[in-house]
Amino acid sequence: MALSEARKTPVDHKILDGRVIGEGIRAEVAREARALADAGWPPRLISIAVGDTDAAMIYIRNQQRVAEKLGIAFEQKLFPAEATRAEVLAAIAALNADPRVTGIIIQRPVPDHLLIKELQGAVHPFKDVEGMHPASIGNIVYNDLVMGPCTSVAAVEMLKHTGLRLQGLEVVVIGHSEIVGKPIAFLLMSEGATVTVCHHMTRNLQVHSRQADAVFVAVGKPGLVTGNMIKPGAAVIDIGINQIDLPDGGTRVVGDADYDSCYDVAGWITPVPGGVGPVTVSILLRNLVTAAKLQRGHYERAFRGGFTPCAPAVAPVAE
Amino acid sequence: MALSEARKTPVDHKILDGRVIGEGIRAEVAREARALADAGWPPRLISIAVGDTDAAMIYIRNQQRVAEKLGIAFEQKLFPAEATRAEVLAAIAALNADPRVTGIIIQRPVPDHLLIKELQGAVHPFKDVEGMHPASIGNIVYNDLVMGPCTSVAAVEMLKHTGLRLQGLEVVVIGHSEIVGKPIAFLLMSEGATVTVCHHMTRNLQVHSRQADAVFVAVGKPGLVTGNMIKPGAAVIDIGINQIDLPDGGTRVVGDADYDSCYDVAGWITPVPGGVGPVTVSILLRNLVTAAKLQRGHYERAFRGGFTPCAPAVAPVAE
Repeated sequence: MALSEARKTPVDHKILDGRVIGEGIRAEVAREARALADAGWPPRLISIAVGDTDAAMIYIRNQQRVAEKLGIAFEQKLFPAEATRAEVLAAIAALNADPRVTGIIIQRPVPDHLLIKELQGAVHPFKDVEGMHPASIGNIVYNDLVMGPCTSVAAVEMLKHTGLRLQGLEVVVIGHSEIVGKPIAFLLMSEGATVTVCHHMTRNLQVHSRQADAVFVAVGKPGLVTGNMIKPGAAVIDIGINQIDLPDGGTRVVGDADYDSCYDVAGWITPVPGGVGPVTVSILLRNLVTAAKLQRGHYERAFRGGFTPCAPAVAPVAE
Repeated sequence: MALSEARKTPVDHKILDGRVIGEGIRAEVAREARALADAGWPPRLISIAVGDTDAAMIYIRNQQRVAEKLGIAFEQKLFPAEATRAEVLAAIAALNADPRVTGIIIQRPVPDHLLIKELQGAVHPFKDVEGMHPASIGNIVYNDLVMGPCTSVAAVEMLKHTGLRLQGLEVVVIGHSEIVGKPIAFLLMSEGATVTVCHHMTRNLQVHSRQADAVFVAVGKPGLVTGNMIKPGAAVIDIGINQIDLPDGGTRVVGDADYDSCYDVAGWITPVPGGVGPVTVSILLRNLVTAAKLQRGHYERAFRGGFTPCAPAVAPVAE
């Protein structure tokens, strides 16, 4: 059977199908979103994009489509490329303070005069559904796995679907970016895995990758991981998304793993597209539901007790 | 030469002497503290202890002694064991807002009715000289190596004193605690090392440790790392502090590495006591100086511009 066929066969248990896994998560999210709406906390997601966002538009539309399918409101705020730092920060502050806003996403890239980290840091941690605020990242380190960075959480979710026991599992993460590689490493450490993080400065990548029960790759280099670099039966979780040119002039999206040679050796593998990607947007919406619960909990703790000297200066009605 | 003698010989280049390394850092801190004081920003450290702090008292007194030696003011705030959560949080809030307070340490342990993480999270990140706020931890992940957790920074400082090039270095960290093991891993990743984090669930610790150019151990188990577990010439950085009973009825403080057998094989080794410990308090005070600079920078940015409609409502003097 040709591998390109195998890839399309739904009964192939080697393939971690992101569409199927994502669907399971979304069904649960839809249920929780309805319950929250019934309790007065309808989840609503705001996407902020600054300047030319053509590159991001495909992601944004996909987020919107999935959100609305689950009955979750999605709203785009588009700023011109000339929007100043102060304007964008003021808009974020207003959204932080707006009770109708559950979560805020800052779409990348932003124009050069803005710092993406500053904007992300300005989002209240309870509304940071991308899990990119330094405090959100710090909380992962502290094992508070509340709202983790979506792509990383999605990648770890794929591994969980293999049924492998994560405690003591030998895992190699290739790529040490702040937004994918490192968070994957922390999430896996919190699950009890033994994690090695490799990158372009690693001297003996193969020595590490061939020992691993699971290999995550998030580098942005097509074909970086080949079948001879992994242990037979290992799980290959591919987070790379690369557009390559085909001889016929067309293009194709591939991951960082050489799919066919890895498929032969691996016990499980995520296709690209159709692997981690479709799960990522589901995790974003799961984070949104979590954000709504955090905000609800905070509100209820603040108001449940009724009037106290520290509460807003509204006198209780005399009996 | 008996190893116990080797340990005391100052010309033994194998030994990473924390007293010598700490002294170098403190000389620089003293210079910077004087310059800050001359500019109107004298660094001042506040230590908060709640309840019975006998166990911590030896550390607190040492912090105070070192701080005052460098001309840095140190003040202890002792709360009774019955202090409520609200009282301690209010005290922290007041210290955050006090311009005379540069840095705040929360001494461990705290009584059971208080959560150390909540208290640490209440310290403003610019005054968090222990580097324990989730945002401080998150900033390490983001490679903002401003104020890292003291013990972890001290341990990495020891490795730097070997002269080994950290880029591409194979490092194994044994212990995945939030306050030591994990931060060491992030700090090393930021320096370009290839890092594996092992712990009690790791199935093949020796396989990892024997491949490493440097082994960090922070577990709290005397004798956990023995000479046969490390590669000849590797650096052994021992963060463990364990009190063991001696046959004669006395006690002795040892690390997590079996010193004598590791000494034979290692290229460098940190003694316990006298290794990472004395460097940790130096890093705490270096963080304090960094905190003063952060606060100064923030103040100057806010006030330098003179009156603007957003500044405090004080009218400029008419010409």
